[in-house]
Amino acid sequence: MSDCLFCKIAAGEIPSNKVYEDDDFFAFHDIHPKAPTHVLVIPKFHLATLADATKEDSALLGQLMDRVRHIADEVLKLDAGYRVIINVREGGGQVVFHIHVHILGGKRLPF
Amino acid sequence: MSDCLFCKIAAGEIPSNKVYEDDDFFAFHDIHPKAPTHVLVIPKFHLATLADATKEDSALLGQLMDRVRHIADEVLKLDAGYRVIINVREGGGQVVFHIHVHILGGKRLPF
Repeated sequence: MSDCLFCKIAAGEIPSNKVYEDDDFFAFHDIHPKAPTHVLVIPKFHLATLADATKEDSALLGQLMDRVRHIADEVLKLDAGYRVIINVREGGGQVVFHIHVHILGGKRLPF
Repeated sequence: MSDCLFCKIAAGEIPSNKVYEDDDFFAFHDIHPKAPTHVLVIPKFHLATLADATKEDSALLGQLMDRVRHIADEVLKLDAGYRVIINVREGGGQVVFHIHVHILGGKRLPF
């Protein structure tokens, strides 16, 4: 997906404030943070939305959630807790169409 | 976990407004909805929080996210989009300590 912003960020073609990277996943600070800590976790593999995932993608989704937990707890040290959000399609607030998981923390989050 | 509210709901010991059930997962309407559609998806297996998941749980997490997608798109028909939220520990807004995924939809969700 040569025109995908998050593919370019994951490839290092567009700079970001990186917090984590491995062979399959990449995490960086949101440029418009909604909380003191606001990080996005993306797979390097392009998938537009959660709604586009198939049963075959469930292993990838499991690894993604495992990395989200690892990054929140071990990298960001959000010991008090955090919120994990995936916005799906426009009505869900999705803006960039490369699946991404928001990690929000650093303050008590009302719900 | 004999004292876990969501284990009891998944087992049918406490009534709920069920929207989906299979061998491993259960989904029901939140009793305090934050949007026109607000459903909780839980594994029948007891896991207190996402932070308690280990690498061995990543297949379970992948299946959970696959079911969330299925329920939102195929059961609830949230075609315009939806938001998926996991609150982790008190600081993340978690109230019941059995991992649960919120699906919010039915209105445009600001973020």
